[in-house]
Amino acid sequence: MGKSRVLPGAERMPSCGCPRDKALNGYKKMSKYVHGYSDRESKRLQDQADTLDELLHHDTIFPAKSEILEAGCGVGSQTKIIARKNPSCHFTSIDISERSLGIARSLIRKSRMQNVTFQKGDVFNLHFGPESFDHVFVCFLLEHLADPVQALSNLRNVLRTGGTITVIEGDHGSAYFYPRSDAARKTIDCQIKLQAMHGGNALIGRELYPLLCKAGFSDCRVGPRMVYVDSSKPSLVDGFIKNTFAAMIEGVEHEALSNSLMDKSEWKRGIKDLYRTTEDDGVFCYTFFKGKAVKKRQ
Amino acid sequence: MGKSRVLPGAERMPSCGCPRDKALNGYKKMSKYVHGYSDRESKRLQDQADTLDELLHHDTIFPAKSEILEAGCGVGSQTKIIARKNPSCHFTSIDISERSLGIARSLIRKSRMQNVTFQKGDVFNLHFGPESFDHVFVCFLLEHLADPVQALSNLRNVLRTGGTITVIEGDHGSAYFYPRSDAARKTIDCQIKLQAMHGGNALIGRELYPLLCKAGFSDCRVGPRMVYVDSSKPSLVDGFIKNTFAAMIEGVEHEALSNSLMDKSEWKRGIKDLYRTTEDDGVFCYTFFKGKAVKKRQ
Repeated sequence: MGKSRVLPGAERMPSCGCPRDKALNGYKKMSKYVHGYSDRESKRLQDQADTLDELLHHDTIFPAKSEILEAGCGVGSQTKIIARKNPSCHFTSIDISERSLGIARSLIRKSRMQNVTFQKGDVFNLHFGPESFDHVFVCFLLEHLADPVQALSNLRNVLRTGGTITVIEGDHGSAYFYPRSDAARKTIDCQIKLQAMHGGNALIGRELYPLLCKAGFSDCRVGPRMVYVDSSKPSLVDGFIKNTFAAMIEGVEHEALSNSLMDKSEWKRGIKDLYRTTEDDGVFCYTFFKGKAVKKRQ
Repeated sequence: MGKSRVLPGAERMPSCGCPRDKALNGYKKMSKYVHGYSDRESKRLQDQADTLDELLHHDTIFPAKSEILEAGCGVGSQTKIIARKNPSCHFTSIDISERSLGIARSLIRKSRMQNVTFQKGDVFNLHFGPESFDHVFVCFLLEHLADPVQALSNLRNVLRTGGTITVIEGDHGSAYFYPRSDAARKTIDCQIKLQAMHGGNALIGRELYPLLCKAGFSDCRVGPRMVYVDSSKPSLVDGFIKNTFAAMIEGVEHEALSNSLMDKSEWKRGIKDLYRTTEDDGVFCYTFFKGKAVKKRQ
């Protein structure tokens, strides 16, 4: 579902996209990117984090006084939540974008939290020594990377033996809704195709288990975190369907149309049908996946 | 996901199908049907019920001494579970198929349970007076009906004011997996199309909320029950992916090919790819929906 990240110097970015700045080094060159450049996108990301807080993070609890690496903190939407939930822990939150880090620093400062240090950093070229952290936390990052196994393997290296990694990713193939609509489905498929064109993978949630295993982690456990929304849950109708999911899909209109993935009238119908699911008889489903695994001696 | 039901006189049935016997009266004529005619299909249904027991029924608990109508009990796979979990309640379990009822009676007799009465009955022509039951239970029935709202409305009529209805249905559009495979996806889509051709709806899970509302129920609450399977859960790999889901899809091969929905080589590849998800790096997701609603005075 993405976080705000901006390539320095990017003048304009497609509002979906991958492999993001993260993957630039040695993987897939891209000229520009990003979820979260515009004010509207920043608001969307904040809505998403607020709405999903309990679902994704009710169990993001680390042992007291842990040293934790948050890889790919973006504008700090998740940082704010997990740092507050673990006040005795210290977070080193890295991102490749100075601009995103600036926004994240400001967010944490406003929240008066003292337990986060922000640093510029790249998961493909980490500047920490082996076994530097007790735990690693990754949220909405792997979907943007061309080589997620390499990234996880690098993160494993800076994790102490016995430490854990926690990973959360979405999966746009898990989105389905009522009333059904082929046009709406196609707008989502556009986002999936565009993310793949940028070297990312919007369907990565279902892959967390094999990815963690391939990266050398042990005791891998993955579970779904499904968002089910009908009109008995008005805060999710607004917070998730409208402000998070539909807003994200709407954000790729320009790129989808300019790549001729859909024509404009069908696109408009698809977006209208996505919003149609927010009416009284509508239903919307989406699933995130949360995985946890341990670094054991190999 | 269906239950065993057989039309008396049906010589051979497609192993998917709808609107099943239930919908025959005044809705959509069909000549034959059924999940669960063959021994293999009966075993599949039993595997399904055993595997999903905890997920679907951990909270299928009724107030002590309730009178409960189970509509569409089929061969009794769910009856056995809910009757055991509610030993002080009495179940009236109806099905339109005498043959299925015979199997169900035998199953319950073998389990030495005394709290179930089986009767032949049709949700479109119920023979009970108004307000006859404290609660109604429906599982894997609506997916086979051409008019599920009418069925729910009829069931509401025989429920006492203040009583509840519990409904469980699957949704084949919720199935996704790793490794991804277009051919495997197409085999599932065949099952969905065939069920629609028979007047049913294999995508009904997501619709439970609006269906219950339209049938006049109040305080409708629906939640997903997602089955997530990776190789860390070997009993689900066998019990759900192989013996329940893939077996069900395999069961419609003849009907899918004879309706030219896929060609044989693509079908074979699709089925092979479904089983491929049972390997060490495979993942399979499927979601059931469980709804509960109250009859209030209108």
